[in-house]
Amino acid sequence: MGKTVAQKIFDAHVVDKPADGVWVLSLDRVFCHEITTPIAINDLVAIGKDRVFDPSKIKAVIDHVTPAKDSKTAEQGKTMRDWAHRHGIKDFFDIGANGVCHALFPEKGFVRPGFTVIMGDSHTCTHGAFGAFAAGVGTTDLEVGILKGVCTMREPETIKVNLTGELKPGVYAKDVILAVIKMLTVNGATDKVIEFAGPAVDAMKMDARMTLCNMAIEAGGTCGVCYPDMVTVDYLWPFIQDEFASKEAALAEYSKWLPDADAVYAKELTLDVSTLEPMVTFNYKPDQVKTVREMEGTPVNQIYIGSCTNGRLEDLRIAAGILKGKTISPKVRAIVSPATPKIYREALAEGLIQIFMDAGFCVTNPTCGACLGMSNGVLAGGESCASTTNRNFNGRMGKGGMVHLMSPATAAATAIAGVITNSPLFTGK
Amino acid sequence: MGKTVAQKIFDAHVVDKPADGVWVLSLDRVFCHEITTPIAINDLVAIGKDRVFDPSKIKAVIDHVTPAKDSKTAEQGKTMRDWAHRHGIKDFFDIGANGVCHALFPEKGFVRPGFTVIMGDSHTCTHGAFGAFAAGVGTTDLEVGILKGVCTMREPETIKVNLTGELKPGVYAKDVILAVIKMLTVNGATDKVIEFAGPAVDAMKMDARMTLCNMAIEAGGTCGVCYPDMVTVDYLWPFIQDEFASKEAALAEYSKWLPDADAVYAKELTLDVSTLEPMVTFNYKPDQVKTVREMEGTPVNQIYIGSCTNGRLEDLRIAAGILKGKTISPKVRAIVSPATPKIYREALAEGLIQIFMDAGFCVTNPTCGACLGMSNGVLAGGESCASTTNRNFNGRMGKGGMVHLMSPATAAATAIAGVITNSPLFTGK
Repeated sequence: MGKTVAQKIFDAHVVDKPADGVWVLSLDRVFCHEITTPIAINDLVAIGKDRVFDPSKIKAVIDHVTPAKDSKTAEQGKTMRDWAHRHGIKDFFDIGANGVCHALFPEKGFVRPGFTVIMGDSHTCTHGAFGAFAAGVGTTDLEVGILKGVCTMREPETIKVNLTGELKPGVYAKDVILAVIKMLTVNGATDKVIEFAGPAVDAMKMDARMTLCNMAIEAGGTCGVCYPDMVTVDYLWPFIQDEFASKEAALAEYSKWLPDADAVYAKELTLDVSTLEPMVTFNYKPDQVKTVREMEGTPVNQIYIGSCTNGRLEDLRIAAGILKGKTISPKVRAIVSPATPKIYREALAEGLIQIFMDAGFCVTNPTCGACLGMSNGVLAGGESCASTTNRNFNGRMGKGGMVHLMSPATAAATAIAGVITNSPLFTGK
Repeated sequence: MGKTVAQKIFDAHVVDKPADGVWVLSLDRVFCHEITTPIAINDLVAIGKDRVFDPSKIKAVIDHVTPAKDSKTAEQGKTMRDWAHRHGIKDFFDIGANGVCHALFPEKGFVRPGFTVIMGDSHTCTHGAFGAFAAGVGTTDLEVGILKGVCTMREPETIKVNLTGELKPGVYAKDVILAVIKMLTVNGATDKVIEFAGPAVDAMKMDARMTLCNMAIEAGGTCGVCYPDMVTVDYLWPFIQDEFASKEAALAEYSKWLPDADAVYAKELTLDVSTLEPMVTFNYKPDQVKTVREMEGTPVNQIYIGSCTNGRLEDLRIAAGILKGKTISPKVRAIVSPATPKIYREALAEGLIQIFMDAGFCVTNPTCGACLGMSNGVLAGGESCASTTNRNFNGRMGKGGMVHLMSPATAAATAIAGVITNSPLFTGK
């Protein structure tokens, strides 16, 4: 019987099967940030097991609240900093070098096809874009991962999402994943892996694939997965060129992580993306999705462009392209957070930061803060935000606040209009 | 009997003298920020007096925690925003257009020689650099100011600080004011105005004069004052050119705010600034000042360049000049906060932001946050910060943290060394 991507990765990493369907996997990467990891560190210290399984496989960053906003977050940062120093974790990204984990770690080349990755963060599924199995875990799993380099997982079933057709101008991976979540519902993929397949995915660059996989969790998915191909190899090449004689050789190697033709899926669904319009969420669940056209004219108070979903260079380019020479509506305030220092600097060099500032945006340092209402853009009660982030739960960006998830293009157009509206890239106007 | 600057301004603004030595002054400006003003707004609403005396004389900004870090600060921002909108306060600077009040308001041309200015902020004394009387006030005074456009003040005595000589390279207004505070002590100017006079002040640009006046409060001073001269007129010219036939005419008009030759001072002191070295604070009071040489080698954890004291373009130029082609010590983290969007954009255009980023700095949006431990750079317990800010009270930048006040040049050199050290501009090395 053929195997899915996750099954192949599980096979290659199994160290034990203590019970039926329960796999103990060896880990290639344990990613850490300052909100969830200090709890694990303090627990390990408390039980006299202040050790790490392999400092080269642990990558750590301060990203959720940075620079620290209060004593609590300053102490969390210090705990991470001291721990990374104490254990020789060289890939620790402190203030100045830090950015949103799920943008920074791919950018550093830390993920490869076939890898097993855990992190105490629900959007860890992002890294499946490289053909890896990457899952968000709780504190106990994180502690075991840090200490032993293993994680216990139930073998997941896989849903295959076939994305056919070609995206219209002004329609992006964000619109696709919102449409997919609407189809699956918020618990439609619970405890399952989602493989994204088909020509529409093949046509996507890595940043768009990361946007797809990033929101797998919003349908309940353990991990989103894209198949490694030459796009993957091109992205990773600076980091792998010493390992392979050629890109073709790398591709051949990584192809072992493709699913078998007769792999068995829990479910398959197909979406012709050429039918899609720009999408936006309403209300408080990520499967509450309408077309932007249906939501046209809905007022918002704040615009936010950033996050692990849509804070990458390509996102900023799209938004800046719409904002160039324009200013935001006096009815709204607008914030852009380039997801990493590299993205920030590239955006600077391309003149994008200047465009955002000229349009009236506040440009923050790279941080996750606003997305989860932790810093740098929290909403007041009764306010709403047009946001390129990933989650619109009640109060997510601030108690009593409403989040409308959308693409950077829609967010930029909405900033100018002051109400939810389609971008000129889509309308052609 | 001759009069001081403050006495002349009081004479020109008196509306009542309800008791001996107590003056009720009319106000030219009431400045507002989102930490202290919402308390006043809510009080005024509660007593049924939700009015403002003159919306054109009220200038308001969200600057202390921006973008909002939590629901509390989001609500404070909303209170300011709604209030400004409700009362037609056109000069309200929201997220994206906002910056540190004492840098933003001068930049907008809101202060003139001879003006009376209040704000619910202790560093309001900064605006005395324009030959104004500008004082920080409490909530009650702020409420009365907003409602009636007046403020009750005890007529202040004045201390005259004569600054003679010429600054050595690498020594700045910040070093001068630290030396002056050391001479005066932290309560040496309590309830008094400090006039800064002499050739060393004449030679300073407005940004340096603002640094001087900004820290008058650290010696207890109600306001610092510099005398209006052609430097003042040049700075203000874009805002006053329609009022005067020529700069000379403006200067003649503003000269009425110079003190009389026979003005009576509570105290006079003279400092030959050519004797000064770069200065730095130790311990927890701003008069605990040593030379950088005496503190050489003291380790720090964080560098902070910003604030109403030293977050202006000239400050960034000096720091970037030292940082260019260098990187910060791996032992420290470093943050720079351009004080206003204009400063940020000018720094961008001059390539300074790139230099800071290349050196390893985190560049935040304009905000006061770190200076007072409210956001964007709070220290953990036991940490210390080399900071261009104005106050080193115990816990100021975070509970259990130590702040070493210094100039941007010293802060930049300290960032590279990882320990407190003199800048190459001073040492010549």
